[in-house]
Amino acid sequence: MPLTEFTLIYRYFSALGRGEGVHLSVGDDCAILGLKPGERLATSVDTMVEGVHFPADTFPEDIGFRAVSVAASDLAAMGARPLAMTLALTLPAADELWLHAFSQGIADAAAQYQLPLVGGDTTRGPLTITVQVLGALPPAQALLRGGASRGDELYVSGTLGDAAGALAFLSGDWRPSPEEAEYLLDRLNRPRARIELGRELLGKATAAIDISDGLLADAGHIAAASGIRLDIDPLLLPLSPVLKAHPSPEQARLWALTGGDDYELCFCLPPGEAAPSGCTRIGRAVAGIGVDCGLDIDVAAGYRHF
Amino acid sequence: MPLTEFTLIYRYFSALGRGEGVHLSVGDDCAILGLKPGERLATSVDTMVEGVHFPADTFPEDIGFRAVSVAASDLAAMGARPLAMTLALTLPAADELWLHAFSQGIADAAAQYQLPLVGGDTTRGPLTITVQVLGALPPAQALLRGGASRGDELYVSGTLGDAAGALAFLSGDWRPSPEEAEYLLDRLNRPRARIELGRELLGKATAAIDISDGLLADAGHIAAASGIRLDIDPLLLPLSPVLKAHPSPEQARLWALTGGDDYELCFCLPPGEAAPSGCTRIGRAVAGIGVDCGLDIDVAAGYRHF
Repeated sequence: MPLTEFTLIYRYFSALGRGEGVHLSVGDDCAILGLKPGERLATSVDTMVEGVHFPADTFPEDIGFRAVSVAASDLAAMGARPLAMTLALTLPAADELWLHAFSQGIADAAAQYQLPLVGGDTTRGPLTITVQVLGALPPAQALLRGGASRGDELYVSGTLGDAAGALAFLSGDWRPSPEEAEYLLDRLNRPRARIELGRELLGKATAAIDISDGLLADAGHIAAASGIRLDIDPLLLPLSPVLKAHPSPEQARLWALTGGDDYELCFCLPPGEAAPSGCTRIGRAVAGIGVDCGLDIDVAAGYRHF
Repeated sequence: MPLTEFTLIYRYFSALGRGEGVHLSVGDDCAILGLKPGERLATSVDTMVEGVHFPADTFPEDIGFRAVSVAASDLAAMGARPLAMTLALTLPAADELWLHAFSQGIADAAAQYQLPLVGGDTTRGPLTITVQVLGALPPAQALLRGGASRGDELYVSGTLGDAAGALAFLSGDWRPSPEEAEYLLDRLNRPRARIELGRELLGKATAAIDISDGLLADAGHIAAASGIRLDIDPLLLPLSPVLKAHPSPEQARLWALTGGDDYELCFCLPPGEAAPSGCTRIGRAVAGIGVDCGLDIDVAAGYRHF
């Protein structure tokens, strides 16, 4: 390993460390961050392992961008303002070309979410990327999973099932056109955390979660935490034009219900509260437990990673 | 893998999540933490990989305790008050006995440092443990690496070289008595982050770092960041009774100079400032660059992990 740990960090990542609220970035024992008066800190951590969370032939730029997006999506699901992130990177070898491309993906995401990289650790071992995100919440506000009540309407942002469609393309189960495949792969490899939407929902939504494991699984967390049942109408699920063009509408809906990796937000609004643009009502909260979509589906399928 | 990710987290770790300043712990998209008015956040992340940072036959309790201590040591080196931690755990399989023991080590450290575990991620893959620590700093105070001036005195806490001695014992290079070996292994496997000392040094020390890579290497970071040279007298280095009993005093001093994994603090005080108890003056800051101990030593040896 020709590059030492410190050379690695400084060469590729130290330029990404500037931002509002960053008092001290990479280069000391800790980074130092400032919150505005009364703000609280929101934090989450996500790990991606090669061969488990992404195929070994994924482009390094996409691995970097996606790792940050997946973590930032948890800030979105809380309604938090992005503050900073840290990166723990385990690498089998210090491949400079790989690092150059990977750090470009990290930089793209840092700029996209205004999430400066303020610290990290690089170690030798099987490729593993852990991103910790830090965000700020205004006093006494947060999008939690447990606040939904009977009568609330259930919404999702964007379209669902595209990442699952991309995995079907990659495994050879589906042969969309090249343009369609490009769209699907962008959705899988470059997911966008819904940061702005999350902040817009703060003070309006009664519950929220990001869809990482599949709609049924993640809506199930809202239902369990809120002590309600969520009824979902599969015919209301928002599908992209590409998924609508799939020969089997049932397959497309199944992806939308159980496919993970879309990183859209799923949330509840009180009756009469207007939904932000780009969001679709897909059901409502009623008395009971669990999630009911009128179909007999193995929710565990939603946990599948490619 | 019979246990799902969520079962794992809740079974072993959810009880560790309570603490002052923890508004919301494990179980939502993010944890929520509160700082006191004016406080700033200090954060750091450390990864440990099996076979790189600890031998494969290390007890799971020790792996857990040590992973937290290594990360907490960075809070100590900043003078920060521990607030909370997150854990990203990559496991080859969900071995319940292993997890039970590992989580006990995490729990011991959480209690030792008052560092509740407020979030995490469990993934499948080669054993990798990433601990992110969060701490609080009073307004406008922090122990940085870059504040030392010519004339400052250089100190270390505790004794140095014990962890390196333990590695020599494990590799068969040294055969101390069973009692001596037990002491050395405790120093290697159960390092104590010097949290209280770090907080005591806040407002007194002009620079500080924790000794993870070896005294020469880590003092070198203070020298570089402060723009001074640090002269160290090897005869002043504090050695444990076990290391003093080593047949070669030169070998013992070499471990104290270059051995990593001791997690003591190295810091500078202005002339005349009294050092806290348990700390030893080992040199001083002068004009120049680098670290000089009067010996010709390859500092890179300090980066070695077992």
